Amino acid sequence: MSYRVAVWGATGMAGGELLRILANHPNLEVVCAVSRGSAGKPLWHDHPHLRLWYPEMVYSSPDEAMDIPTDLVFLALPHRGAWKVAVDYRERGVKVVDLSGDFRLKDPAQYARWYGEEHGAPAYLEQAVYGLPELHREDIASSSLVSGVGCNASCAILGLAPLASTGLVDSVRMELRVGSSEAGGSPSKGSHHPYRTRTMRVFEPFRHRHLAEVIQETGLPEDLFTMTMTAVEMVRGVQMLAQVTLKEPVKEAVLWKAYRKATEGRPFWNVCPARPSHLRLPDPRFVLGSNHCSVGFVLHEDGVRLLVVSALDNLMKGASGSAVQAANLMLGLEETSGLDGAPIYPA
Amino acid sequence: MSYRVAVWGATGMAGGELLRILANHPNLEVVCAVSRGSAGKPLWHDHPHLRLWYPEMVYSSPDEAMDIPTDLVFLALPHRGAWKVAVDYRERGVKVVDLSGDFRLKDPAQYARWYGEEHGAPAYLEQAVYGLPELHREDIASSSLVSGVGCNASCAILGLAPLASTGLVDSVRMELRVGSSEAGGSPSKGSHHPYRTRTMRVFEPFRHRHLAEVIQETGLPEDLFTMTMTAVEMVRGVQMLAQVTLKEPVKEAVLWKAYRKATEGRPFWNVCPARPSHLRLPDPRFVLGSNHCSVGFVLHEDGVRLLVVSALDNLMKGASGSAVQAANLMLGLEETSGLDGAPIYPA
Amino acid sequence: MSYRVAVWGATGMAGGELLRILANHPNLEVVCAVSRGSAGKPLWHDHPHLRLWYPEMVYSSPDEAMDIPTDLVFLALPHRGAWKVAVDYRERGVKVVDLSGDFRLKDPAQYARWYGEEHGAPAYLEQAVYGLPELHREDIASSSLVSGVGCNASCAILGLAPLASTGLVDSVRMELRVGSSEAGGSPSKGSHHPYRTRTMRVFEPFRHRHLAEVIQETGLPEDLFTMTMTAVEMVRGVQMLAQVTLKEPVKEAVLWKAYRKATEGRPFWNVCPARPSHLRLPDPRFVLGSNHCSVGFVLHEDGVRLLVVSALDNLMKGASGSAVQAANLMLGLEETSGLDGAPIYPA
Amino acid sequence: MSYRVAVWGATGMAGGELLRILANHPNLEVVCAVSRGSAGKPLWHDHPHLRLWYPEMVYSSPDEAMDIPTDLVFLALPHRGAWKVAVDYRERGVKVVDLSGDFRLKDPAQYARWYGEEHGAPAYLEQAVYGLPELHREDIASSSLVSGVGCNASCAILGLAPLASTGLVDSVRMELRVGSSEAGGSPSKGSHHPYRTRTMRVFEPFRHRHLAEVIQETGLPEDLFTMTMTAVEMVRGVQMLAQVTLKEPVKEAVLWKAYRKATEGRPFWNVCPARPSHLRLPDPRFVLGSNHCSVGFVLHEDGVRLLVVSALDNLMKGASGSAVQAANLMLGLEETSGLDGAPIYPA
Repeated sequence: MSYRVAVWGATGMAGGELLRILANHPNLEVVCAVSRGSAGKPLWHDHPHLRLWYPEMVYSSPDEAMDIPTDLVFLALPHRGAWKVAVDYRERGVKVVDLSGDFRLKDPAQYARWYGEEHGAPAYLEQAVYGLPELHREDIASSSLVSGVGCNASCAILGLAPLASTGLVDSVRMELRVGSSEAGGSPSKGSHHPYRTRTMRVFEPFRHRHLAEVIQETGLPEDLFTMTMTAVEMVRGVQMLAQVTLKEPVKEAVLWKAYRKATEGRPFWNVCPARPSHLRLPDPRFVLGSNHCSVGFVLHEDGVRLLVVSALDNLMKGASGSAVQAANLMLGLEETSGLDGAPIYPA
Repeated sequence: MSYRVAVWGATGMAGGELLRILANHPNLEVVCAVSRGSAGKPLWHDHPHLRLWYPEMVYSSPDEAMDIPTDLVFLALPHRGAWKVAVDYRERGVKVVDLSGDFRLKDPAQYARWYGEEHGAPAYLEQAVYGLPELHREDIASSSLVSGVGCNASCAILGLAPLASTGLVDSVRMELRVGSSEAGGSPSKGSHHPYRTRTMRVFEPFRHRHLAEVIQETGLPEDLFTMTMTAVEMVRGVQMLAQVTLKEPVKEAVLWKAYRKATEGRPFWNVCPARPSHLRLPDPRFVLGSNHCSVGFVLHEDGVRLLVVSALDNLMKGASGSAVQAANLMLGLEETSGLDGAPIYPA
Repeated sequence: MSYRVAVWGATGMAGGELLRILANHPNLEVVCAVSRGSAGKPLWHDHPHLRLWYPEMVYSSPDEAMDIPTDLVFLALPHRGAWKVAVDYRERGVKVVDLSGDFRLKDPAQYARWYGEEHGAPAYLEQAVYGLPELHREDIASSSLVSGVGCNASCAILGLAPLASTGLVDSVRMELRVGSSEAGGSPSKGSHHPYRTRTMRVFEPFRHRHLAEVIQETGLPEDLFTMTMTAVEMVRGVQMLAQVTLKEPVKEAVLWKAYRKATEGRPFWNVCPARPSHLRLPDPRFVLGSNHCSVGFVLHEDGVRLLVVSALDNLMKGASGSAVQAANLMLGLEETSGLDGAPIYPA
Repeated sequence: MSYRVAVWGATGMAGGELLRILANHPNLEVVCAVSRGSAGKPLWHDHPHLRLWYPEMVYSSPDEAMDIPTDLVFLALPHRGAWKVAVDYRERGVKVVDLSGDFRLKDPAQYARWYGEEHGAPAYLEQAVYGLPELHREDIASSSLVSGVGCNASCAILGLAPLASTGLVDSVRMELRVGSSEAGGSPSKGSHHPYRTRTMRVFEPFRHRHLAEVIQETGLPEDLFTMTMTAVEMVRGVQMLAQVTLKEPVKEAVLWKAYRKATEGRPFWNVCPARPSHLRLPDPRFVLGSNHCSVGFVLHEDGVRLLVVSALDNLMKGASGSAVQAANLMLGLEETSGLDGAPIYPA
C-alpha cells in the first residue's frame, strides 16, 4: 500500500526531517517538495545528508505543487503561513498535516491571545485535530486535517498528562531545555555559533507560547503553570524538568499506576523504570533520532514534591515524527510505519 | 608585599586553577606544589597551559612540602583528605585555605549527616570560617583557617542570600546546571566524553550535598528547599535556576532593594539590570574565566512566583578564585588582587 | 529468512552499535549478548537507548554463550582477545565476523610488526577475509571467517583505493580526524570530558597502526604514506584529508573515471559531485548514523597536487555497520539489509 | 604612563576582544568605542561579559569619534572599510593599528590580485608595517601605521618562519583548522549553530587568502604552498598542521636550532619541547584566552618529511592581542603590557 505525499516548507528543518523519514518509509512516497524561494534547485543542496535518497528531485514552486496529485500533504511552513494552504488542500479533498501553530488551539479566542491576531479560518479550528497520537489516536485516524504539535508542548504534555488525569496537581513549574534546531533553519544573532554554543540562555521566564497547548491538552487551569525556557548545547532535543507540587501527599504507586495506564499500548511513549536510579530520569540523548518520548519521575519523601522529567527529539517526536505518525493513522497504515528506528547513541 | 604559598592537590583541577591564578598574582608566590603521586614530575605535564609560567617547577611530595616555609597553604585535596593536613599546618602557625568540604559545615552533627561519618577534628570546625567573602569578609580577614566553598553552594547562596534576608521566602526549588570540570580531574564512566558530551543528565532529584551549605548560609529551614542537579555541556560553569515562591505578593522594588544592598561594595557579586530583558538572567558564559558571580531575577505578575538565576565559573568563583580572594583578605592584601581579569567571551 | 546471531563484547561501543543495528534488522535475531563482567545484567543498563528493544535480555557469560546455538557470531572484543573465541566458533562451524584487529593483516610478519607480538593462530589469517565489502564482496560472501576493518583504515581505503588503481600516486600524506567514540567505552585521562572536548590533539604524527591495513588494501608501498591522527570534537565520525601528489599532471576526468568505476554498484560508497563546490568535500556529519562512506576530491590547477577527503561514521561504516554488511553477504541476505537508514542531520 | 585609545568596529568580535584586553590594560584607556549602527547604545549590550568594565560607556558614531582626541586608534573594521579611516587619522597625526586586511600586503599588485580590486591608498602600503611583532618588532616600534595580521596567517607564519629561514623547504601543504569566531559576529547559514556545530567542513582546498601573507612574510615562493581550510568545533582557536617536505634529509638538531633562535626573547612565541611526546604538538586549547603562539614539530625518520603544528587564539594572538602588542611597541610601552594573562584551561 503506497500513498503519495507532498512536503511544503521543504527547505527548512522540519521539512528536511520529513524528507529524511519519508526516504525510508515503506508506504509513503514523496511526490513533491515545495519551496517558494528554491524552486528548481535540488533538494540535497539544502539537505546534503539526503543526496543518495533524492538524487534528482528538485523543489517545486507552490503553483507547480498544487497541480501534482497527492493523497496527503505535510505543511512545514511558518506560523500564519500555513492555514491558507491547508484550506486550499482541504477544499480539494487532500488530507493535511500542518506542523505550524495555525491549528493547534481549538479556541479562536485563545489563538488570538497567544498568537496576537485573529485566526484567518476559525471554522477550520473546530475540525482540526490536535496531532498528538498518544492522546488523540482515534480522532486523528478519522480526521482529514490534523495539526502538528509544538515540540516543547509535546514534551510537556507527554510528561504531565498522566499526572493531570489524577486530579492531584497543585502547581507545576516547568523548565524546558531546548537544542538549537528548535529555532529552525534561519540564522540569527542568537543562533550564531560563537554565541549559541554552550549557552545556558534562559530566554523566557514564565510563559512560553507552547504553554497554551499544555493548558488545552492537560485540561489544567493556566494559573497552575509556569513554563521557563533555557537554550542549551544540543542540536536536537527537548527536555522538560517539571517541579510539581501535589495537593496532598501520595504514595508513589499512585503515580506509577497513572503513568503506566496512560502509556500502555503507546508505541512511542514510555516510562523509565525506577531502577537503576541513574537512568530514572531521561536524557534527550537516549532518544536522539527516534520517535520516542521517555518520561521519568521521582517523588520526594514528603509525598508532595515531585520531579517529572521528559525527553524527546524535537525534530522527530516533537515535529516531523509525530506528523508522520499522524499521517499513518489518517491513511490507515500501521501507526509505527517508517518510524521504528532505534535512537543513535552515543552521538 | 609578597607572600609564599603552597598548593596541595596540585595535579587536580582546582589545584591547576590555583596555579593559573597565582601565575599572574602580584603578591603571592608559589613555593611548592604538592602531589603524592607525581612528586618530581614537572607541573606542566598535568597543566600544559602553564608551561611558560612554571617551566622548571616539579611537584613536591607531602613530606618535602612540610619542610618548605610558607605563609599560607591552599589545600585542594579530596574531601576527608584535607583536615589532617590543615590541622598540621595550623599547628605550625601557617594560615590555611581548605577547598575541600572538610570545614564547610559548622555543626559537627550536620557534617556527620551529610558526609556520612564523624568529623575527625571537630574542634577546628568552630574556628574555621566559611570562605565566601561576599558574606564573611571581616571574619575571613581575621581568621587563619578558612574553608573553601562548594561550587554549587556558592552559586546558590549568592543567588538566594539577598532574598533570604527579606524573610519573604516560602519555598525554593533550585535547579543547578553544572559543567564537567565540577567532577574534577579523574576520569569515570560518567565523564567519558562520548557519554558526557551534550548530556542533560539529571543526577540528583532533590538534595545535593551542597544543600547543607545553602541551608547554613541562608539561615532558611531545610524544608523550604529542594536542589536538583543537571550535568550539561559545559566544561566550566554553574548556573542556578531557582523557582521561588514568596509568602505574599511583593513589588519588584522590594527585591531590587534587597539585591542591591547585598551586592553593594562587593567587587565580584553583581545583579543584572532589568534591561535589556534578554540579558536579565545571566549565562555562565558571560563570567567564564573570571571571579564574578552574576545574579538576575524576574518576578511573576502575581508577585509571588519568582525566578532567580545565578551564574559563576565553578573553578574560579566556585573554588580557586574565592580561595585566593579569601587568602588575599587573610594576608591583608587587596581583596581583588590577582583576580580582576575580565571574562573570556565568546569562548 | 531469519538467522540467529550472538554479539560478544556487547557492553562496549561497537557492541552497542551492533545491538542497535540488529534491533531493527529484518533477518537477524540477537540470541545472546556476551559479557564476562556484566553477565546477568540487563543490556539496557549499558545501552539506555535500547531499553525498548531489549527490555528483558541480560548479558550471557562466555560459558553460557558457547552453549547457545547461533548461525553467526560478531566479536567486538579487544585486540588479541578475539582470535581464540573466533577459532573456537569456527571449530564448531559457526560463521564469525571479528571486529578486532586480530585477522585484518594477511601476512603474519606484518601482524607481528604492527601489533608487537606473534599471531596466535596464523593458520587462520589465510582464510580470514578482510571485511570491507566494497573491495571484497565476493570473497566475503563465500567466507566463514571475516575480519572487521579499522575505522580509520576504512575511511582511508575507501578514499584512496580508486586512486591507487590508477597507478598515479606518488605520495600520500593522510590526516585522519577522529571522534571520541573511536577509543571505545573505557574512560581514560584522554577521554575525560574536560580534556577531550574541543581538543585538536595531534596524537600520532606519521604512522597510525591502521596504516598497515591501508598499505595491504591499496597495494601501494609503505614509503608513499604518512598517516597523522587528530582527535577532534565529535563523538562519531572519521574524516580523512589526504594531501596527495601524483606522479604526473592529470586531467580531472581521469580521476572521475576511477572513482566512478570503483563506486558503481556499491550501495554504501559514493562520490560527491563537483557542484555545488561547498559540498564537494564530505563532512562526517552528513553520514552520521548511517552506513555510508562519502568521498570527494579537488585537483589543483597544476594537475599534480590533489586533495582527497572521505568521511564515515566510525561506529557504523567504520565498525559495526560494515560487520553487519559482511554478515548479510555471508548469510546470503541482501547486502543492505538492516542498514539502509538515512543519516541523522543536523544532530 | 597612560594613553588614550579609540576602538572602531567595536560591536564586532575583534572589537569586543580589544575592549576586553583594554579593560585590564594598565596603560591604555578606551576613550571611545565606535559603531555606525549602534551609536548611543551601551557597549555591554553587545558584549555582556564586559558590563562591569564599561557600565556607562555608549558607542560613539564615526563623526563623534573623530572629534575625540586619542593617541592611537584600533580599527576593527571590515576589509576595504578601514583604509579611509586610517588615512584620515594618519593625516591628523594619530597612530593607527588597522586589524583589517587593507594594509597587510606591501605590493599593490598582490593586493589587487588577492582582494580583487585596486587598493585605494597605495601610497600608504609602503609605510604600513606588517604587525606581527615576532618578526617586525623594531619596525613596528618606529611606525605610526601598523597593519593587523590575518589570524590564519599569524598561525602559519609563526609555525613556518623559522623553517623558511633554513632554506630547506621544498614544499608545504598546510591545513588550517579554525573556530567559529574567525568568521566574526555576523550570522550566516554557515555559522548557524545546528549546521556549524561539530562540523568538519573543508571550505577551501588549496588557497586561502591569508596565503598571500604567508608568502610575503616567509619569503618562500608561492608555488611551494597549498593552504587548506577546515572549520571545526571550536569558538576560538586556529591550528596549523603543515605537512612539509624538505629538500634533503636533515638532523632534528638543525630544526631545533632554527626554532630556538627565532623564538628566543619573544615573549609570546614558544616551541614545545620534545618530551613528553603527547604534548609535543600544541592544541589551541592550551593557549585559549592568551596571547601566546605555540609551535611543535616532529621529523620523520627519513629526515625529509616533517610535521609542523602551531596553535593560537585567533581573537587574541591572531587579531586583537597582536594589535595591542603592536600598540604597546608603538607607544613605547612594555611589549607584554596588558597581555600577560595565562591561558584558561580546561574551558
